[in-house]
Amino acid sequence: MRVRDDHDGRPHVVIIGGGFGGLICARELAGELVRVTLVDRSNHHLFQPLLYQVATAGLSPAEIAVPIRSVVRDAENVTVLLAEVTGIDLASRRVVLRDEDPLDFDYLVLAAGARTSYFGHDEWAHVALGLKDIDDALEIRRRVLLAYELAEHEDDPERRRKLLTFVVIGGGPTGVEMAGAVAELSRFVLARDFRRIEPRATRVLLVEAGDRVLSAYSPELSTKGLKQLEELGVEVRTGAKVTHIDAGGVHLGTELVPAETVVWAAGVRASPLAETLGVKLDRGGRVMVAEDCSIPGHPNAFAIGDIACFPGPGGKPLPGVSPVAMQQARSVAANIVHSVTHQPREPFTFLDKGSMATIGRSRAIAEMRGIELSGFLAWLAWLFVHIWYLIGFRNRLVVMLSWCWSYVTYKRGARLITGRLFTDGAATVADPPKRP
Amino acid sequence: MRVRDDHDGRPHVVIIGGGFGGLICARELAGELVRVTLVDRSNHHLFQPLLYQVATAGLSPAEIAVPIRSVVRDAENVTVLLAEVTGIDLASRRVVLRDEDPLDFDYLVLAAGARTSYFGHDEWAHVALGLKDIDDALEIRRRVLLAYELAEHEDDPERRRKLLTFVVIGGGPTGVEMAGAVAELSRFVLARDFRRIEPRATRVLLVEAGDRVLSAYSPELSTKGLKQLEELGVEVRTGAKVTHIDAGGVHLGTELVPAETVVWAAGVRASPLAETLGVKLDRGGRVMVAEDCSIPGHPNAFAIGDIACFPGPGGKPLPGVSPVAMQQARSVAANIVHSVTHQPREPFTFLDKGSMATIGRSRAIAEMRGIELSGFLAWLAWLFVHIWYLIGFRNRLVVMLSWCWSYVTYKRGARLITGRLFTDGAATVADPPKRP
Repeated sequence: MRVRDDHDGRPHVVIIGGGFGGLICARELAGELVRVTLVDRSNHHLFQPLLYQVATAGLSPAEIAVPIRSVVRDAENVTVLLAEVTGIDLASRRVVLRDEDPLDFDYLVLAAGARTSYFGHDEWAHVALGLKDIDDALEIRRRVLLAYELAEHEDDPERRRKLLTFVVIGGGPTGVEMAGAVAELSRFVLARDFRRIEPRATRVLLVEAGDRVLSAYSPELSTKGLKQLEELGVEVRTGAKVTHIDAGGVHLGTELVPAETVVWAAGVRASPLAETLGVKLDRGGRVMVAEDCSIPGHPNAFAIGDIACFPGPGGKPLPGVSPVAMQQARSVAANIVHSVTHQPREPFTFLDKGSMATIGRSRAIAEMRGIELSGFLAWLAWLFVHIWYLIGFRNRLVVMLSWCWSYVTYKRGARLITGRLFTDGAATVADPPKRP
Repeated sequence: MRVRDDHDGRPHVVIIGGGFGGLICARELAGELVRVTLVDRSNHHLFQPLLYQVATAGLSPAEIAVPIRSVVRDAENVTVLLAEVTGIDLASRRVVLRDEDPLDFDYLVLAAGARTSYFGHDEWAHVALGLKDIDDALEIRRRVLLAYELAEHEDDPERRRKLLTFVVIGGGPTGVEMAGAVAELSRFVLARDFRRIEPRATRVLLVEAGDRVLSAYSPELSTKGLKQLEELGVEVRTGAKVTHIDAGGVHLGTELVPAETVVWAAGVRASPLAETLGVKLDRGGRVMVAEDCSIPGHPNAFAIGDIACFPGPGGKPLPGVSPVAMQQARSVAANIVHSVTHQPREPFTFLDKGSMATIGRSRAIAEMRGIELSGFLAWLAWLFVHIWYLIGFRNRLVVMLSWCWSYVTYKRGARLITGRLFTDGAATVADPPKRP
């Protein structure tokens, strides 16, 4: 008999996704009168806010990821299942898995998150890489580092310029962090390592379709963010719409920016699992949830985090950030316990503690309950909050140490190009990513 | 004009390989009256003695690897080239590269190392993984961790037993280290993380064709090593010849050991580059070198490390270990300088400072100038020597910290299964490795 089909009388809660929402929900349900199955298609929880650091060789994957099993090892009523969910049948309360027996649930918490969206241009994916998981980050790291290596022994100046042009599309926090980190990598870390090319001459272009970067912040903070980006040498183009991306580079209307490495941070869309529910979704593919985060018509099924659309103040949906997911997770866990113990549910309310974006070593902007910070102070706040929330003590310590070391020496520890380079011919950075 | 074709009158030394031999040779030639091109097909130097720690999730890749460019960044006469060498023409003093112009040399140092050899059974490679580079180690880590995940929700007891059987082939230091580390991973690290399977029940089988493990050591030390392996729960089979390996497991004559994960540590062969030289090779494909490590008939071309066969005391070839490569590198660098400055060359002599093998946390054997150690003291010596020789201060500090942390908590930090698992169907550990 399978553990997840065991019936000991306790209601069965199935949580889909081991991100911030799913993991916090499982931890909150530890020791409660339910049995929990946490399903994820990866074995690790990822601290996504620092993923850009892996993509730019500042941190190693293991420094920002932790095995889900370790996090819930002491929660005896929680079982972790490494499997891919292919569909959800709300009517028969059943989760369908790939190549596995389905899971029956009494309560469902859908926390499957979002993935990179190219707004209908999936053919751009080969050139413009998204940044959502460790494999994405390692592929970006590989391409960025390889671009310098190829530029170092490239004779054609045009081709060399193309290799040393990095375009980041999307001026939100992820795009700004990526652009800042690539600029720093070039100017400080790689500067002395090459003989022929001048890594400082790297062109980092940040393309934003709207009229300002970091538009979730006030115009003043946004301007301060822009200024800090420009100090790092990032070229910012606002009001620039990407019309096409191919091996030649990024097309902005009639203008072609020749670039070998393109990072796509312009948009995400909810996990396609939402589409299998047969309920109303918003334009971003997110489930329109009720005030207790339940799926309308299915009071025992909840959606939280990036896969849910929850109307915040003024009816504007809450943003897809980790504090929303974590607070929703706590609320949903509490409401499941309330239901099991026949108590009334409580509606979810979001407490906005602020948000921050880093622009590079000692540069950032932050907004906390009406207080706006920028520059070094904002960066210190960012550093403190991010290390604080890293799950697992070892990670915190190791990450802190890695950063202190990089800060003092301008070295980066994780500058590895992995994956066979020369098995089937010479490496070219325009190769589409092939993965196992 | 290409840097590597620049002619400033200084003789051009081409070093092939950025392992212990090549890298030390480049560093020794820094500041001398030669210009040096160091060619490697990977961008990093790898501290191979700790590679098994990556394969068993003890360390992250970046903790045992360092970009070659960083190591020689201050050596202005050294250029690093990321490229694959496809052949060497000794007569015309030319190194042929894949998709690049060839390199002309005045002096050649061939330090291309060795790779996994299946003794003519390359078809075993899909099942039995070698352990020579970061990609190998990450693939082994992926398979080992995935085997536990699949076992956790496997109903068939036979299949579960097969998933939890790990066979390591080859009783030399690498095989012993791998077997010990897998046994520890199961017994201490994973023990509490799973709900259904009992990771302690893992079967780790070490297969050795000869009559004892660690046969490079004295029979007494070898016996002590065996005892320590058995204390960890490793099942050791000596005098067992592998006759076939397939998806069903490992065949030892008529006996089949069903196993999903097989590690091949039974043999290496010199890089196939040796074959392009047209000179005499030994049975292991190594270049038979003269007493100054030069290739007979080609006084300005040298071979060092695992690709060279150098007769040691009693005519027995020196073993393929890093101290040999490093001492040869220093000797060859000195002799190149002697040649350039018209001084006589000196023959190479190997100073054996001893050797050691670790069997797990606080278990090891060591032999140093006639003194034999085993157990905790040998392990401390091993720890000290290995951390000492890790290139780069950050690595030393981070590795030391990681180990202290694992030692105290029995946790392992790098337990990540990377690479898409569910893209084209369910993951099975028997899938052949596919790499970019």
